[in-house]
Amino acid sequence: MSQTTRIPPRTLKGFRDYLPEAAIPRERLIETARRVYRSYGFTPIDTPALEYLEILSGKGGEESDKQLYKFQDQGGRWVGLRFDLTVPLARFVAQHASELTFPFKRYHIATVWRGENTQRGRYREFMQCDFDTIGTRAAAADIETGLVIHDLLRAIGFERFCIQVNNRMVLTGLLERLELADRSVAVLRALDKWGKIGPEGVAAEMRETAGVSDAQAAEVIRLASVSGTSDEILTQLEPLVASSAKGEEGLARLREVLAGVRAAGVPDSHLKLNVAIARGLDYYTGTIFETYLDDLPRIGSVCSGGRYDNLAGLFTQLELPGIGASLGLDRLLAAMEELGMVEKAATAALVFIPYFDPARLPDYLRLAAALRAAGIGVEVYPEPKKLGQQLKYADRRGFRVAIIAGSDEFQNGACQVKDLASGGQRNVPLEPDPANLVTAVKQALGI
Amino acid sequence: MSQTTRIPPRTLKGFRDYLPEAAIPRERLIETARRVYRSYGFTPIDTPALEYLEILSGKGGEESDKQLYKFQDQGGRWVGLRFDLTVPLARFVAQHASELTFPFKRYHIATVWRGENTQRGRYREFMQCDFDTIGTRAAAADIETGLVIHDLLRAIGFERFCIQVNNRMVLTGLLERLELADRSVAVLRALDKWGKIGPEGVAAEMRETAGVSDAQAAEVIRLASVSGTSDEILTQLEPLVASSAKGEEGLARLREVLAGVRAAGVPDSHLKLNVAIARGLDYYTGTIFETYLDDLPRIGSVCSGGRYDNLAGLFTQLELPGIGASLGLDRLLAAMEELGMVEKAATAALVFIPYFDPARLPDYLRLAAALRAAGIGVEVYPEPKKLGQQLKYADRRGFRVAIIAGSDEFQNGACQVKDLASGGQRNVPLEPDPANLVTAVKQALGI
Repeated sequence: MSQTTRIPPRTLKGFRDYLPEAAIPRERLIETARRVYRSYGFTPIDTPALEYLEILSGKGGEESDKQLYKFQDQGGRWVGLRFDLTVPLARFVAQHASELTFPFKRYHIATVWRGENTQRGRYREFMQCDFDTIGTRAAAADIETGLVIHDLLRAIGFERFCIQVNNRMVLTGLLERLELADRSVAVLRALDKWGKIGPEGVAAEMRETAGVSDAQAAEVIRLASVSGTSDEILTQLEPLVASSAKGEEGLARLREVLAGVRAAGVPDSHLKLNVAIARGLDYYTGTIFETYLDDLPRIGSVCSGGRYDNLAGLFTQLELPGIGASLGLDRLLAAMEELGMVEKAATAALVFIPYFDPARLPDYLRLAAALRAAGIGVEVYPEPKKLGQQLKYADRRGFRVAIIAGSDEFQNGACQVKDLASGGQRNVPLEPDPANLVTAVKQALGI
Repeated sequence: MSQTTRIPPRTLKGFRDYLPEAAIPRERLIETARRVYRSYGFTPIDTPALEYLEILSGKGGEESDKQLYKFQDQGGRWVGLRFDLTVPLARFVAQHASELTFPFKRYHIATVWRGENTQRGRYREFMQCDFDTIGTRAAAADIETGLVIHDLLRAIGFERFCIQVNNRMVLTGLLERLELADRSVAVLRALDKWGKIGPEGVAAEMRETAGVSDAQAAEVIRLASVSGTSDEILTQLEPLVASSAKGEEGLARLREVLAGVRAAGVPDSHLKLNVAIARGLDYYTGTIFETYLDDLPRIGSVCSGGRYDNLAGLFTQLELPGIGASLGLDRLLAAMEELGMVEKAATAALVFIPYFDPARLPDYLRLAAALRAAGIGVEVYPEPKKLGQQLKYADRRGFRVAIIAGSDEFQNGACQVKDLASGGQRNVPLEPDPANLVTAVKQALGI
């Protein structure tokens, strides 16, 4: 191949490669999410990346339509790349309703594409990590959603976080009393910006976009400002929603959710009622969740979701209520990096065996096989280069322990187990079997 | 939403949804592959699904070009969906060479798209599961590739399989001697069909497409027919390639690979030299692997790969030799199903707790939390429906054990642990702590 015909290697704007240092923690995070989802009986599903365009654009507004990657395929069909996992879920449940068992609990961890403006630092390809329970209005499903979010954060390694819970019916109840029910979407959208623009900003936006009066705005702000412990807030909310059946129903559900999550062992510091959270989407109709890291509140919610009345009305006459949430993988990874929770390593195996003595490859392979059989990841360097060069490679990759054995060691039936961070090493006998080595390596790794 | 505007829920031709029963074993298979790859020091990477069209079509022939999903994006760029993981790997390594550590060992498990003719039962979207070691010509990397294939098959649960190994240089050596070097591609393509069309078919095709003489065809067939143990084949091959430097080099490498894999503990029944395997692609230049299941040879190779001299010549002047292989996920899943290796269940959690006593939800949640803390997946039914109805749900989903507790049981500080397959159940005390329950459930599950 002549140089002139070479193609410059590059990725598209808004797309990125994951190098090992980034791909390893991302894969671990996804594995943790899967494990937690499964532990509650959620099952994986998968749907195609490409769907009929009418399936994808059926629901979206103009904004999401503009962001859709769409084209005509080889057969002349208009198709698009999925921009979220909710529309495909709705299509999936409508299409396979007769084959599924309800309540249907699924998780779906998959890539979505949006032709977003990359100037805001957004990527055009990212992974979503959703779980939903479809086909029940029961409070137990709301409680469980809170428990799953809690277990997710704990399993990932967070101790300091708070799941904030609210119920759209409480807000709706107040809006009914204030005769603002017809403007609820605009009011809730304004309220959703509370964290960013504060109560004055929210009041101004409500007056502007929803045409609410000063008195009405003050009432909404008063509701959203109710503070104290979750129990104190519940008590204060009672009179505010007393005249509205919806408001009272929402309040009763909030009580159940808070009590249920607490009963399952989640401390109050990790779950709190916050009347100011509204979630922007019209879609939500009951319990809603947002989750903030105590140490990085400014990055926004890392796990959000809520209850909806009708998942798949676009595709079926079946009424499918449900509840679910989505873990923000990219935000969490950025947070974990900022908080020093991510080990910088370009290897998921921890042990390195330099290829020291050119004649001993079979022995290195046998040692590696013995360690792998004990569940320990091991890499054998493929070429008998100088030891220093191989250890430099091990250092760049981030291995923790090296097993060094040359002809002297083998003749003495022993090897050196070297801690690559401290440089300390000890002599470990290889005979009569590699059990000693396995023990020594586990000690060195602290496992 | 009126009925008339409803959109029929359907997937595109050649695309499919994965329902829980199919998604669970697929996800398990992928997890097993990840675990094995990591245990050898391979690291994950990820690349975008969309690439510049020139990157993707740079290499392909007309056939793969026709299959490419390509379109102009919102910015007018010609882009395409990746059709394999090798071209993106080449682009990735060329682009990030200065950030990577060589030898670079990566795995990549990701979706690819090909607008194939679906009449042959092929899907247009499927997952590939590749691993490669880039930047070394060492025999140790060839040996390791064989070991990884072996460990993959064993870890997935196969006992009866054979990895067949060959070396393209041995074939090339013979072709040089027969003065067929200039027609090697056509000859090897014919040879690649040995399993399907037999030696006579191969001979006929070689005569037709490569214009070889009867005598030459007979020689090629003689080489490819050499049989016996791997050691016997090596001995018989010696004189056949003796006059060719390439052939001798290939033979020496084959010896090393066979000895190395054996030294690491792989029995001869699982790795065998087979001179008739050639791999269709021009791309391979050295060691090649194919893997067949003893009980289902007709499904073809379930893990194939080999050594190549120059991965990324299209994108960089760096010469990057490497070796790798790809696990055929779909074939393996089909085989596992046919061999009864896949448990039919629509749940990855094994324990079911019926919501029996309406007042006891907090207690059910606590029991579930205790079991989850012990690593056992548990689903709590969200509504206090009739027990029979809930157990029917549990049966459809495939749970193994149910924990049944009503007000009587709770008053007596006990519950019933019920084996859902046999129907047998036993009384288990819940007091003073749920440790008894954890033990009883583990026993019932046999873990």
